Amino acid sequence: MVNFEQRIDSYRDLINDRLKNVMTRKTPVSFYEPVHYILEGEGKRIRPILVILACKAVGGNQNDSLDAALAIEILHNFTLVHDDIMDRDDLRRGRQTVHKKWDEATAILVGDGLVALAYHYLLKSKTDRIREISDIFTTGIIDLCEGQALDKEFESSFDIDLDQYMNMVELKTARLLMIASEIGAMIGGGDEQQQKVLRDFSRELGCAFQIQDDILDMEPTSRKTFGSDIKQKKKTYLFIHANNNASASIKKQIMDIYQKDIIEPEDIIAIRRLFEQSGSLDFARQVVDEGINNAVDMLQQLSPSEARQDLTSLLNWILERKS
Amino acid sequence: MVNFEQRIDSYRDLINDRLKNVMTRKTPVSFYEPVHYILEGEGKRIRPILVILACKAVGGNQNDSLDAALAIEILHNFTLVHDDIMDRDDLRRGRQTVHKKWDEATAILVGDGLVALAYHYLLKSKTDRIREISDIFTTGIIDLCEGQALDKEFESSFDIDLDQYMNMVELKTARLLMIASEIGAMIGGGDEQQQKVLRDFSRELGCAFQIQDDILDMEPTSRKTFGSDIKQKKKTYLFIHANNNASASIKKQIMDIYQKDIIEPEDIIAIRRLFEQSGSLDFARQVVDEGINNAVDMLQQLSPSEARQDLTSLLNWILERKS
Repeated sequence: MVNFEQRIDSYRDLINDRLKNVMTRKTPVSFYEPVHYILEGEGKRIRPILVILACKAVGGNQNDSLDAALAIEILHNFTLVHDDIMDRDDLRRGRQTVHKKWDEATAILVGDGLVALAYHYLLKSKTDRIREISDIFTTGIIDLCEGQALDKEFESSFDIDLDQYMNMVELKTARLLMIASEIGAMIGGGDEQQQKVLRDFSRELGCAFQIQDDILDMEPTSRKTFGSDIKQKKKTYLFIHANNNASASIKKQIMDIYQKDIIEPEDIIAIRRLFEQSGSLDFARQVVDEGINNAVDMLQQLSPSEARQDLTSLLNWILERKS
Repeated sequence: MVNFEQRIDSYRDLINDRLKNVMTRKTPVSFYEPVHYILEGEGKRIRPILVILACKAVGGNQNDSLDAALAIEILHNFTLVHDDIMDRDDLRRGRQTVHKKWDEATAILVGDGLVALAYHYLLKSKTDRIREISDIFTTGIIDLCEGQALDKEFESSFDIDLDQYMNMVELKTARLLMIASEIGAMIGGGDEQQQKVLRDFSRELGCAFQIQDDILDMEPTSRKTFGSDIKQKKKTYLFIHANNNASASIKKQIMDIYQKDIIEPEDIIAIRRLFEQSGSLDFARQVVDEGINNAVDMLQQLSPSEARQDLTSLLNWILERKS
């Protein structure tokens, strides 16, 4: 019998095979070489898998969703290439980023090309709702840009509350998951209600994922390097919660650390203790749990199916929660 | 009676009004402020005017073409913002470029947003061929990227022939004009033959424009600064023609100048004389004339109309030729 993980692996293989065959053209070399480099990098392929599962969860045929799945993954890679330039990140998934391995001009151009390639595959989708689907895809890209702009604006501001932070997270992180599952549902022939359920499910998933990621930064044993967000003085969910809710004394201690030129390992341990004292860690864990529960509850509005079950398993897998 | 120039002015006003009302949203400020800045800059609006004229030339209603016209102009502005970063240009139409007035990260993001905004308006077009139209638009963007990549590759190579150069020019300069008129024709309800005529017309227009621009660089009395391409050691049509066709002695003299660290005014005068001696200037002028004649002849395949006449006038106006 085939289990969840085997099914996910087989979907990933399908996507990876198609990514290898995106545009078999080889010239201009300065354009197609980095295009293939980025598309053939490692990746969990969560977003295209969401497209496939959403399509199946409303009773659609998975083959109809593969072009859109590819489009969503290519679009995701576009955001990686351009965000890496903006964030001056030199490494991604253990390899040099495009602007580092080639140069910035190349990375800008490759990102632009990936957007067009994403549309190219989206427009191949077998559906009679291509205008509406393309519109959701397009609005999604505008939202991603707004999210990235907000994220950059927040870097130089301490005056952010949790609502503003979560609005940014929804745009920058959740939106792509949301349009992935909404488009999957539409291609699968889902009705408006099913579309909405799957879109909302992915909003909860994306937002919970980001808060969870902010929490894991404070867990010495997690996959993340302990305190890497703090070292970069990021305004994480925990930081913003504490900054808005902690006592004046705790807030001052946190701000003192964030105003240092270099944040040392002992500062990270101190910050973790402060986030515990302020109740920020507990609060964040509770919000993640609520998000997960909401997401799982939402799926109950769909008819039972293997794909519906797989969406719950996917959620637990992404959020690294034993199901 | 309304003449050609008044009609062009009225189309430009229509486009400019719409550009002012693109996305009335104001936040995030770091995103929408530069978006509005670039869209409200000066511009001849040739590409959207081509969309309108092509639509009318096949008997369509100009109002149906305005969303696509806006989309094409926004897409053009996207290429300007990103090309200006890649080419490190600080000024555009007498104003600071986006990456100069703000910063590179902002300019990358704004360009990305403009691509999505372009699709947003394209998808509003009143047509039952939206999938096909979006596909032409998308393939056009991929071609633009290929053209830009080739242009960059040519910067570091002397081994280019006229065919390679014209292939690059068609992708980088002509393609946007080609999809403008093709999409205009489709929205106007044109048949395959009319579509092809208008697409081919714009290929001739775009290619002739680039060669003409390369010639004008060698005319001391033209709108261009005399020899600005030569100062930047660009491989213009004239340079490539001479490098492939001139005598060994002329070629050597040209190469000697292109290998200097700084090109002086007297070098520019010398280069002009060498391009005359090699027959490159005459050859280029002849190719432009042939292109213009071809383009005008092509239009005769369409039924006579004011719009068809305006397309000829537009061609002469763009190529600065007295008609």
